[in-house]
Amino acid sequence: MHLIDNLQYANWSEKIFQQMQEGGVCAVHVTIAYHEMFRETVANVETWNRWFERFPELIFHGRTGDDVRRAKIEGRTAIFFGFQNPSPIEDDIGLVEIWHALGARFMQLTYNNQSLLATGCYEAEDPGVTRMGRQVIKEMNRVGLVVDMSHSAERSTLEAIEISERPIAITHANPAFWHPARRNKSDDVLRALGQSGGMLGFSMYPHHLKDKSDCTLASFCEMIARTADLMGVDNIGLGSDLCQDQPDSVVEWMRVGRWSKEMDYGEGSAGDAGFPPMPDWFEDNRHFGNIAAGLIAHGFSEADTAAVMGENWLRFYDENFGPANG
Amino acid sequence: MHLIDNLQYANWSEKIFQQMQEGGVCAVHVTIAYHEMFRETVANVETWNRWFERFPELIFHGRTGDDVRRAKIEGRTAIFFGFQNPSPIEDDIGLVEIWHALGARFMQLTYNNQSLLATGCYEAEDPGVTRMGRQVIKEMNRVGLVVDMSHSAERSTLEAIEISERPIAITHANPAFWHPARRNKSDDVLRALGQSGGMLGFSMYPHHLKDKSDCTLASFCEMIARTADLMGVDNIGLGSDLCQDQPDSVVEWMRVGRWSKEMDYGEGSAGDAGFPPMPDWFEDNRHFGNIAAGLIAHGFSEADTAAVMGENWLRFYDENFGPANG
Repeated sequence: MHLIDNLQYANWSEKIFQQMQEGGVCAVHVTIAYHEMFRETVANVETWNRWFERFPELIFHGRTGDDVRRAKIEGRTAIFFGFQNPSPIEDDIGLVEIWHALGARFMQLTYNNQSLLATGCYEAEDPGVTRMGRQVIKEMNRVGLVVDMSHSAERSTLEAIEISERPIAITHANPAFWHPARRNKSDDVLRALGQSGGMLGFSMYPHHLKDKSDCTLASFCEMIARTADLMGVDNIGLGSDLCQDQPDSVVEWMRVGRWSKEMDYGEGSAGDAGFPPMPDWFEDNRHFGNIAAGLIAHGFSEADTAAVMGENWLRFYDENFGPANG
Repeated sequence: MHLIDNLQYANWSEKIFQQMQEGGVCAVHVTIAYHEMFRETVANVETWNRWFERFPELIFHGRTGDDVRRAKIEGRTAIFFGFQNPSPIEDDIGLVEIWHALGARFMQLTYNNQSLLATGCYEAEDPGVTRMGRQVIKEMNRVGLVVDMSHSAERSTLEAIEISERPIAITHANPAFWHPARRNKSDDVLRALGQSGGMLGFSMYPHHLKDKSDCTLASFCEMIARTADLMGVDNIGLGSDLCQDQPDSVVEWMRVGRWSKEMDYGEGSAGDAGFPPMPDWFEDNRHFGNIAAGLIAHGFSEADTAAVMGENWLRFYDENFGPANG
């Protein structure tokens, strides 16, 4: 089985890379931009390049599905880059191809707010994909940069699925039917995502979980089973949203960036502003075995468990990380 | 009379600065950014600084209403900076104050497309002012950077008028009742603008004129009279949108920027892609006398003519270019 976690944003360290290796994690899609513009995101790539240079026995830069297979054989973890905001392309459609060359494989069209491309889930209104958004989706399709709508509002997400000629992803979110958080997705979105060959990555971030930090593994696995019924067992995987070892200043950057002089608490609140504690069955990269065991216990076959734990993402990587006519 | 043209974007040259002097133009609000980001716009300020250095007998950098009075006394033209897009503040509310310090006095919340702040008039949908837009308007109000909605869509414009605690401007547009171009403004917008103490600058850009390049001076002056009836003779002025000596490559930059790989013709069309010829009664800065004469001929008093030709803008500059509590 190729274990893939399709979203993490940890305070990276040798310890965490070792935990990935210990946990048998073949690939992790890591966020390298929340609000960073082009040059700042390039600097984040440089930081990753230094980690690749320092810890080659643990991690390397992943670009294709085959890199995941290689990671498994070599006992390392392939690191795939993605953005939670289109800020790294600024206002420039030409940067889509530049970023693919630099290794980016996922780009959210929005974080929580309105972007130049589409609407985030915290805006009062959602007018859908913008004029620039339509152009940029076409270009992302051409070069093989996957549209990610994890933080986008409902209409924008449905339109992105419709407009994109290649399947899109919601890398880290859960179904709203299980826990009606603003970041979780409606049945309509999940159905359209599955029918179009897209992928949902289940989040273990407490604000997206029923009962938050107290969510049980059994409830999480039952939710996965219901989602498989709704959108197909081939269209789901993991996107833990693990933010390990991050100081609370980081969640402030994620929420407020540079767009407001006032604090915005996003999914939190004034009394609960920091990162919430993870559920005890998923605290770091060594705990994916709990989830696999939970799926088996819930009645998933070995094959379906492997599909959810990474084989679905691997197929999606194979099909969507290269040029449209490649 | 203090003659003020509240919007030009010419291919600047000593010739044009001389024409301003010859025409007795005391102040011009010049666009220094269409799609330029922060650093690029700073470079445009540097270019202006070189012109100020080279032609001190003709032009200088204007920052206050008193600079307009000084310009008149000295027979020079005060140049005020403004943006037709919020791109110079990128995603950073802190840049509002930085830009005010660098001399910017007007900022459009949008050009033709969706921005991070509001919606442009070429989008299919207009959800109004965004979360970031509300924060930025508050900050613009605080420091004295005027909100300009010339290229914005209807709902966004009405919301900006409502949200802003200081009067806003539509620096260059005409009423849709006279010529129903997408860039021209509805009665609702003009009424709300006038009631809130805001200003409309009449455009002489042919796409905004009835009969375009063939528009007559009489028709233009009659439109001004009807607009004065609608929104008050104290809330109107000039914003010619003169794009003198610009090559057609510039209108392409204005329309397409970096947001699309395809051509977008904006107000033009494939068969009429370039800058249209100006009407013969307004070809450059020496022709403002034609408009003053036209207003008098239409029956405007000397005082009202002076109000339209610049005194209204001067009052607006006095009241809106400084800090809110200044």
